Amino acid sequence: MLAEEDIPRRWYNIQADMPNKPMPPLNPATREVLRAEDLFPIFAEELCRQEMNQTDAWIDMPEEVREMYKYYRSTPLVRAYGLEKALGTPAHIYFKNESVSPMGSHKLNSAIPQAYYCRREGVTNVTTETGAGQWGASLAYAAKLFGLEAAVYQVKLSYEQKPYRRSMMQTFGAQVTPSPSMSTRAGKDILTANPNHQGSLGTAISEAVELARTTPNCKYTLGSVLSHVTLHQTVIGLEAEKQMEMAGEYPDIVVACFGGGSNFGGIAFPFMRHNILEGKTTRFIAAEPASCPKLTRGEFRYDFGDEAGYTPLLPMFTLGHNFMPPNVHAGGLRYHGAGVIVSQLLKDGLMEAVDVEQIESFDAGVLFARSEGIIPAPESCHAIAATIREALKCKESGEEKVILFNLSGHGLIDMASYDKYLAGDLINYSLSDEQIQRNISALDKTMH
Amino acid sequence: MLAEEDIPRRWYNIQADMPNKPMPPLNPATREVLRAEDLFPIFAEELCRQEMNQTDAWIDMPEEVREMYKYYRSTPLVRAYGLEKALGTPAHIYFKNESVSPMGSHKLNSAIPQAYYCRREGVTNVTTETGAGQWGASLAYAAKLFGLEAAVYQVKLSYEQKPYRRSMMQTFGAQVTPSPSMSTRAGKDILTANPNHQGSLGTAISEAVELARTTPNCKYTLGSVLSHVTLHQTVIGLEAEKQMEMAGEYPDIVVACFGGGSNFGGIAFPFMRHNILEGKTTRFIAAEPASCPKLTRGEFRYDFGDEAGYTPLLPMFTLGHNFMPPNVHAGGLRYHGAGVIVSQLLKDGLMEAVDVEQIESFDAGVLFARSEGIIPAPESCHAIAATIREALKCKESGEEKVILFNLSGHGLIDMASYDKYLAGDLINYSLSDEQIQRNISALDKTMH
Repeated sequence: MLAEEDIPRRWYNIQADMPNKPMPPLNPATREVLRAEDLFPIFAEELCRQEMNQTDAWIDMPEEVREMYKYYRSTPLVRAYGLEKALGTPAHIYFKNESVSPMGSHKLNSAIPQAYYCRREGVTNVTTETGAGQWGASLAYAAKLFGLEAAVYQVKLSYEQKPYRRSMMQTFGAQVTPSPSMSTRAGKDILTANPNHQGSLGTAISEAVELARTTPNCKYTLGSVLSHVTLHQTVIGLEAEKQMEMAGEYPDIVVACFGGGSNFGGIAFPFMRHNILEGKTTRFIAAEPASCPKLTRGEFRYDFGDEAGYTPLLPMFTLGHNFMPPNVHAGGLRYHGAGVIVSQLLKDGLMEAVDVEQIESFDAGVLFARSEGIIPAPESCHAIAATIREALKCKESGEEKVILFNLSGHGLIDMASYDKYLAGDLINYSLSDEQIQRNISALDKTMH
Repeated sequence: MLAEEDIPRRWYNIQADMPNKPMPPLNPATREVLRAEDLFPIFAEELCRQEMNQTDAWIDMPEEVREMYKYYRSTPLVRAYGLEKALGTPAHIYFKNESVSPMGSHKLNSAIPQAYYCRREGVTNVTTETGAGQWGASLAYAAKLFGLEAAVYQVKLSYEQKPYRRSMMQTFGAQVTPSPSMSTRAGKDILTANPNHQGSLGTAISEAVELARTTPNCKYTLGSVLSHVTLHQTVIGLEAEKQMEMAGEYPDIVVACFGGGSNFGGIAFPFMRHNILEGKTTRFIAAEPASCPKLTRGEFRYDFGDEAGYTPLLPMFTLGHNFMPPNVHAGGLRYHGAGVIVSQLLKDGLMEAVDVEQIESFDAGVLFARSEGIIPAPESCHAIAATIREALKCKESGEEKVILFNLSGHGLIDMASYDKYLAGDLINYSLSDEQIQRNISALDKTMH
């Protein structure tokens, strides 16, 4: 744990230090390069400026935001002695425990500044999408903190799989609608084409963006993917850097699960900075579900961030914005694309990606629960699985590598998935190359 | 937060300082005064000695136990600025946040030492009862930590109301059986008399005690009521004492919810010590559900701790060991009796008790969630409701009293109750005097 005065005062903006900057987002109508002000109708202005900022490596946290961070930060950095022993590995395994946030995950780190900037700019209503509900619950609470009304579109599959997260959002006073819904043009179109559509983050984003566009004084907020979200999450890695120093170690490998990239970037970028600027050789591993493998099997190209095609075109690794991920329990990872920063870094070989099958992820989660006492979120189980793979390699080679992973959240609201796992009812979803290619090649017809 | 070296090294045993010691437990067969060794067949021996110890005010924590405490302690002491503002009260409200334990409640504080002593004495199997499942999950994990097998009898009502806690226990590798069950003599008798019996802590204790008695190398463990459990929980109040000192304040009022007394005693006794020894005048308020009002409407007398009458006879405030509490969502408070220490203290006027209706408790819980960002356990909602009552009195009188309450756990596994509350489907259970008296007067026929 850090002393209060050691909680970071600035976020780290890796865009300023990247050897190759991300390519620019494009206006979907004109295909022209987007400027920050083009995003003002949808997002708080300060967030748009952060999104496009490729020059300042450090962005000051507003004092009000840091005050709210202090309610639950710093989060602990923990040496996973129990897991090391269970694996019999010489590796030193550390995890950053973001599950201690009152919302149960890292998502509050960005919900607070997003709600804060909206409030400062006179916004009264915010809207967003959520998968498993970690982001939606965080935004609902942050909105309440700053006196904003919140409306959340939750992916229908998760709305039904994880009713307790819906209850959490409602307890904080948010409106929650399962997506796709009949309340928006985008939702109606999707449901008309497929009445049994189970929703994805892509459909929920379309609906929330549409609501923001059509509601006075209402802004959209996003829980991952975008660069300003990842910026806010760097508080994780900046804390971890100081904490690793206190422990007298430096990570050889940094691991995080991967949905849109915010928890990955949050823990990885502050360390990656030392690779870029000082030639350190830490490896960075993003662990994605085998059922939604944009980093390992997707294509790098311009694509929309949402199902309906409302967002700017973003240069990213994608499975196609109409890709419908299978019903895995890691709802927060069911997204077709990767953020633009991570996509560029992966292309440039500054990081790696692995995919993890659903059952392997829960094998890892249960082993972790029994050895460390924390039941991890299904999303975080992917990071644990990738960590275990590396720790077992160390066991074979005898190397004492230092592995740091981000425990992005706890799984207390996801116990139904553990029930299924314990009953032997979970399945893996292996996608054929044909399935992977279907939506990507459809893109070629409409976009260069 | 406390520095690691300030985490207590000893528990506080208030029995040594009480002006009137608790009356002794009695052997139910002979009605003779019980000695520690009479309990050896059921509990680990060291725990029996702690139970009966009326002379040593301080008991050393084993180093192994303190090492495990350090994984999640100290827990934060938080000034509830948000709640103060929402109430418009001049009172200073603090809460001790036991919900940050990886199990989500204070229960791990006693599960760890109980499992540790069992292991040290060569026990291989432990068994216990649980209501809402906070204790069962903690014991399941503590057993795993020390390499013990755990079997948990969970109150049937909670087993069905809160399936996620059953999943948690199973994830930690415990056997979980809904109680009453057909697996014990006691369970069979209860189900034969009433096939729809929904269970209570009293029935689950009978089954677990019976299993311990009839299984080689198996000990019973208890989550509340007994004096050694409360002893372990004093780590809460001992930390809070140092933390209040750091905040430069001392509580005028200490509040906790009340089931068997362990979280109440845990936070209250270290402060009560200063009332007894130094004449301080802090008030101590136990908040119990109106549906299970042993402190406010029960009788002080000898009674059994369980439904079947397997336990020693204990001198306590009780509603009668056959009292069947209504189906409130605060499963951890559905117990007919109070621990012997608390009972004596209440009799001697060293503490107070109030009862809280179910709906008032959730009103308080939702207000707290929206102002402090933490969704409290239904049990803890009772402490918050009693705190709010006192804070509103301060608003009226203009007094700046310092109120400290124990947030014994979070409610993330209890969201179904919040759903019901938000839907307006929760009810109050007001008991008539006749209902209260029925089981108490039945006692007169069998016991003096």
